[in-house]
Amino acid sequence: MSTPQPTREDKFTFGLWTVGWPGRDPFGEATRSAVDVVESVHRLAEMGAYGVTFHDDDVIPFGSETTARDEHIKRFRAALDETGLVVPMVTTNLFTHPVFKEGGLTANDREVRRYAMRKVMRNMDLAAELGAQTYVLWGGREGTEVDTAKDLLAALDRYAEAIDTLAAYSEARGYGLRFALEPKPNEPRGDIFLPTVGHAIAFISKLDHAHLVGINPEVGHEQMSNLNFTHGIAEAIWLGKLFHIDLNGQHGPKFDQDLVFGHGDLLQAFSTVDLLENGGPQGGPSYDGPRHFDYKPLRTEDMDGVWRSAAANMRTYLLLKERAAAFRADPEVQEALAAARVPELRQPTLAEGETFEDLLTDRSAFEDFDADTVAQRGAGVVRVDQLALEHLLGAR
Amino acid sequence: MSTPQPTREDKFTFGLWTVGWPGRDPFGEATRSAVDVVESVHRLAEMGAYGVTFHDDDVIPFGSETTARDEHIKRFRAALDETGLVVPMVTTNLFTHPVFKEGGLTANDREVRRYAMRKVMRNMDLAAELGAQTYVLWGGREGTEVDTAKDLLAALDRYAEAIDTLAAYSEARGYGLRFALEPKPNEPRGDIFLPTVGHAIAFISKLDHAHLVGINPEVGHEQMSNLNFTHGIAEAIWLGKLFHIDLNGQHGPKFDQDLVFGHGDLLQAFSTVDLLENGGPQGGPSYDGPRHFDYKPLRTEDMDGVWRSAAANMRTYLLLKERAAAFRADPEVQEALAAARVPELRQPTLAEGETFEDLLTDRSAFEDFDADTVAQRGAGVVRVDQLALEHLLGAR
Amino acid sequence: MSTPQPTREDKFTFGLWTVGWPGRDPFGEATRSAVDVVESVHRLAEMGAYGVTFHDDDVIPFGSETTARDEHIKRFRAALDETGLVVPMVTTNLFTHPVFKEGGLTANDREVRRYAMRKVMRNMDLAAELGAQTYVLWGGREGTEVDTAKDLLAALDRYAEAIDTLAAYSEARGYGLRFALEPKPNEPRGDIFLPTVGHAIAFISKLDHAHLVGINPEVGHEQMSNLNFTHGIAEAIWLGKLFHIDLNGQHGPKFDQDLVFGHGDLLQAFSTVDLLENGGPQGGPSYDGPRHFDYKPLRTEDMDGVWRSAAANMRTYLLLKERAAAFRADPEVQEALAAARVPELRQPTLAEGETFEDLLTDRSAFEDFDADTVAQRGAGVVRVDQLALEHLLGAR
Amino acid sequence: MSTPQPTREDKFTFGLWTVGWPGRDPFGEATRSAVDVVESVHRLAEMGAYGVTFHDDDVIPFGSETTARDEHIKRFRAALDETGLVVPMVTTNLFTHPVFKEGGLTANDREVRRYAMRKVMRNMDLAAELGAQTYVLWGGREGTEVDTAKDLLAALDRYAEAIDTLAAYSEARGYGLRFALEPKPNEPRGDIFLPTVGHAIAFISKLDHAHLVGINPEVGHEQMSNLNFTHGIAEAIWLGKLFHIDLNGQHGPKFDQDLVFGHGDLLQAFSTVDLLENGGPQGGPSYDGPRHFDYKPLRTEDMDGVWRSAAANMRTYLLLKERAAAFRADPEVQEALAAARVPELRQPTLAEGETFEDLLTDRSAFEDFDADTVAQRGAGVVRVDQLALEHLLGAR
Repeated sequence: MSTPQPTREDKFTFGLWTVGWPGRDPFGEATRSAVDVVESVHRLAEMGAYGVTFHDDDVIPFGSETTARDEHIKRFRAALDETGLVVPMVTTNLFTHPVFKEGGLTANDREVRRYAMRKVMRNMDLAAELGAQTYVLWGGREGTEVDTAKDLLAALDRYAEAIDTLAAYSEARGYGLRFALEPKPNEPRGDIFLPTVGHAIAFISKLDHAHLVGINPEVGHEQMSNLNFTHGIAEAIWLGKLFHIDLNGQHGPKFDQDLVFGHGDLLQAFSTVDLLENGGPQGGPSYDGPRHFDYKPLRTEDMDGVWRSAAANMRTYLLLKERAAAFRADPEVQEALAAARVPELRQPTLAEGETFEDLLTDRSAFEDFDADTVAQRGAGVVRVDQLALEHLLGAR
Repeated sequence: MSTPQPTREDKFTFGLWTVGWPGRDPFGEATRSAVDVVESVHRLAEMGAYGVTFHDDDVIPFGSETTARDEHIKRFRAALDETGLVVPMVTTNLFTHPVFKEGGLTANDREVRRYAMRKVMRNMDLAAELGAQTYVLWGGREGTEVDTAKDLLAALDRYAEAIDTLAAYSEARGYGLRFALEPKPNEPRGDIFLPTVGHAIAFISKLDHAHLVGINPEVGHEQMSNLNFTHGIAEAIWLGKLFHIDLNGQHGPKFDQDLVFGHGDLLQAFSTVDLLENGGPQGGPSYDGPRHFDYKPLRTEDMDGVWRSAAANMRTYLLLKERAAAFRADPEVQEALAAARVPELRQPTLAEGETFEDLLTDRSAFEDFDADTVAQRGAGVVRVDQLALEHLLGAR
Repeated sequence: MSTPQPTREDKFTFGLWTVGWPGRDPFGEATRSAVDVVESVHRLAEMGAYGVTFHDDDVIPFGSETTARDEHIKRFRAALDETGLVVPMVTTNLFTHPVFKEGGLTANDREVRRYAMRKVMRNMDLAAELGAQTYVLWGGREGTEVDTAKDLLAALDRYAEAIDTLAAYSEARGYGLRFALEPKPNEPRGDIFLPTVGHAIAFISKLDHAHLVGINPEVGHEQMSNLNFTHGIAEAIWLGKLFHIDLNGQHGPKFDQDLVFGHGDLLQAFSTVDLLENGGPQGGPSYDGPRHFDYKPLRTEDMDGVWRSAAANMRTYLLLKERAAAFRADPEVQEALAAARVPELRQPTLAEGETFEDLLTDRSAFEDFDADTVAQRGAGVVRVDQLALEHLLGAR
Repeated sequence: MSTPQPTREDKFTFGLWTVGWPGRDPFGEATRSAVDVVESVHRLAEMGAYGVTFHDDDVIPFGSETTARDEHIKRFRAALDETGLVVPMVTTNLFTHPVFKEGGLTANDREVRRYAMRKVMRNMDLAAELGAQTYVLWGGREGTEVDTAKDLLAALDRYAEAIDTLAAYSEARGYGLRFALEPKPNEPRGDIFLPTVGHAIAFISKLDHAHLVGINPEVGHEQMSNLNFTHGIAEAIWLGKLFHIDLNGQHGPKFDQDLVFGHGDLLQAFSTVDLLENGGPQGGPSYDGPRHFDYKPLRTEDMDGVWRSAAANMRTYLLLKERAAAFRADPEVQEALAAARVPELRQPTLAEGETFEDLLTDRSAFEDFDADTVAQRGAGVVRVDQLALEHLLGAR
């Protein structure tokens, strides 16, 4: 059986910080040297990637003078030009420097908040210049370890003030950026604000520029709370808020593992790909943006392992896409779904034009409804489940 | 030291299903007999409670004929009249009967959905009659174990259709009810739709009747995902969506324990009470609805233990309220908070009338900002933390 | 591609309580009728199972008089005789009846403990009569919700007293039984004693009859603590304590899901089967006992779904076994493992006959060891990982 | 109310790496400068600590030449002499240098294992010289991310070989050290070998030098698996294996937080102190070793916060000790415990001299036992629970 090969049409993108991660963790020093971003661009292009993404400090070291900064950008742009890779998304590092230790956009210290805003605005200029459509905001330092030492309500006021100001800036400058908040429940802070897909979208609903702001959910971040990632992005899609996506792997509630996509909860990776590519049972794609990998090559590996792990993300995605397509195309699956009344859920509960008054007069809906008899109907879920598993295993 | 005694002004309410829980669990039979709701009303009134709440089937056994139903309601109302207890919230049981096994308002089976709607509407009539202000919807059976056997996007369509129809019904009848969705991540379903405070509020934002719909968060439900409950309700308060609250205890991600309030994560219970009563550092209450206990008396206990556990909820809440008030009133705490710049977070990041253009020209915000020097400032969190802990322990 | 069919040689066994589970959960009534154990025996035999297992109360309703009891046993034995199914394991129900609410073998109430002992002994007599080799003890009620209300040290004394007495009884009667403790972290108790594979084996080490006592680990029980099940059974095998095994599926720390085997963490199911069948990289089986499924058919299903789910357990196991065999046989995998120095771990750290004094004089081991250079060696894990995943997906 | 002050008799000890932690985390640079160990020794002594502990590399930078090494040791010893602080425990850093990326004592690479052994032996020499009684081994790098790329059984062989060799070395040299393995479920590795208190003690049972090896459990490490720490150390005490203890705080399954003791699960901290100081209801201490704090001062803090956090650990412990003593001394508590039959658990299930044959003939134990009636007895747990909570809150 041949393994599918990635092409640009697959829209696979990588953060430069992924293959560039040197392997420093809370208990250990770096195991690999820094990778030149130019090399990363070339290697990823050769492997079939479509684009790259970055934090400001990934391309331009923190604190660079203007001349040095321009030189870094120039080299990077040249690599993009040579390879044809695009930059669909850009983001800001508001977490590495100690000045952000108590928060960036929600720090108690107002000077820090103002500096954070400026750091984002400066990188938005670059994002627009590079043609990015999406600007991601991961608030890794926005949060607490001690709730009584933070004004939680004021923190949300400041967060909203910041996002709205940044959105207004993009509009005023004609940058055309959409903003994607990236939720995470914890790490590095004990509890991070906007911990899940849901909390982030709920927050957005109150913004003045809500229409410009969506989310960038990450597989492992939801799974760190043992939440179902596929359910999470289904809700985001339903609300029109899936602006970008971070694919990787995680083994449940523990530190942020950033494994290769599919190498955590494989069954859930399958249903995620099925939702993105097929809209689940609906038969068409539900997301058309980049398939962005935000993972870390294992710290145990040398550079050979790094590039293999980048390829593994794309191969795994394509294999799951093939399996999901075969699953949806299988007549036995379709029959099993029909038997499970899955298509019936698309039928509204009230008939066209039916009001609640009509429903109240429908005796079959209540007075004559025989709950005990209807309860006998099997839901037919097991059959669909095993068909899915066998398709996933390539056994059908 | 005297223990505070609950009074009606404390607005403590209990679900009838709490003290009435007979102790049947997934591995064991009931350990206690059913409790007559009339007895529960009297006992809770004697202990200082303010009101009771119920699912339809708690007061009127499932499937009761109209005459029997009326008799059950009459006895219950008499008990309310005798005791003066109020019924500020009512809810529907869409989870016990097998007919709801694959869902209620989002079941694949349309007949089940219509029946579920009618069951809710019928109990809304009673809720309005009893003067309830809030109608809670806990969708314990709305979810999946197998994602490929459900149309996740259609499920949200049906869920929204149902809530909007019910809200329209309340409006049309002049019931004045507000709806409160109760999130839970799992149990009894493998993954429940709208798993957290955030997901529920995000969902509400798309409803036609969004203004009538908020949430009823439960301490233990958020903690089952190891999320910070105090943060969750802070966001709900900030969004104007904390319509009701369920207080109890839980020891992290495991089955739904429904312990007595405070008997799970005690430090978080303290910050929750501090937020509700004092708005955290803001100094005034942030919620004025009932303090509703949704817990289960331990299955090991006889009826003496049941009533003791009901009292324990109220005593614990009042003790935490006292401790939180003392904490906020302590001048040393206020000094420590000021040193930690906590009040500064209420100050907007942009000055009054300042635009982003002004910010861009403020060199002190970026060009002349000395990140390394500012980073030296200690955040002062440890001091506040230990003061809080010592207040909580009654040691100050 | 053909799906493998189970045969008796595969040694698949099922608890009668699995297919017989009527679907009652903490929030809902039963969705299916009780299944006659005789029917279960016949259906499982037809599907290719090797044997069945049971709690006393599964076959003989609690409190049956002697005559009724004998009749129940007789019918059951007849079904076994007709089908040729064996009973390799038997266990006791010390959790359903309310008398065990505060514990069985570790209840504070000494009368309860004595009764629990007798209930076990009586069923051991039956187990021996039916030819069982293994007696499982799951202490689902042995534990606490409130630590200050239990003498934790005394509880372990009583637990050990009980196991040693039961082992002595088996020896004295010549029953030849081996005992297998089944760990679980929680549910139904807030915290169960001996919560993991490790805690159970550690406890056993102090027993007088330690040689007769091992463990019966369950996939989902370890995963409820987000522990790696494959690691857990590897340690049990290493210690000679894997006396029996319970296969099923679970989605991380939440209530006990008892899903079909493989339908939780599929990658870990693969490594579990690889360890059992191939000893991991060692190339031979590491366990030769029954492959016992302890799962619950989804509550949404009718009896058709029940039998399909039973078949799904066996098919999934066999598919994983095929995939694991192909993985181990693949020359590219063997090369990748060699490159990753996996076989080198079997080589002792000290050479044959080498003492620590010799090691101390080996300058290459320390004084001349160049840590920085050795640190450059890539561990080669990514390559093995992706090969495993592609074998699992049937893509190689 | 006065806060208790720590004295040397309290036996509080601190790892030098705790107050010395500069605040570097996976997403951020250090926020504090390195602290000179000599300063730490003096500051801790002034605050009332009893001793300090260290990894080799905490006192002697990795790779120091012999002369530099001697100088570091000399300065450190002088500080100990000046302050009178003792060094009851020492440990080795087998995790920071990249050479240990795939493991130390269980690395696939045999050269790495030999080097790791030597590194430990060298530091054991120093430990003995400084009069330490306990040598801790935390195998933070011993584990996997990919199970199919490791020989799990061989890893345990190598782990045992290493521990036995080290124990033999201590014996041969007359060092009198006892070894304490420190379990942790994950972080930095995806799954660490010997993940819990239980797994570590089970492993020890097979060692040749089992009598010299026990455990060093850490509050947060067990709680990262949502396991009950108090239960865990009760089992370790029962097995005679609690050789040392690491006190800190954690908020459930997430990254390793290393909070101040008591600032995570406060109720469980209370039962832990009650067990250590009072043996639970048994009335006497169950552990007499150092009370060792292994925590990290919050990264948000400057040095003032660091020293405050060190003091907070000791104050919190002493407050909990006072509360636990008052709880045990309260006659109402004693009455409630008697009513809950807690003391009855110390009574063996079989009477003195009673055999299982006697039990079989005791009709009151089974034939005449009325399970339904006995099941009515309330366990009395709620009353004890609320008394404990009110003592903890200083409200009694």
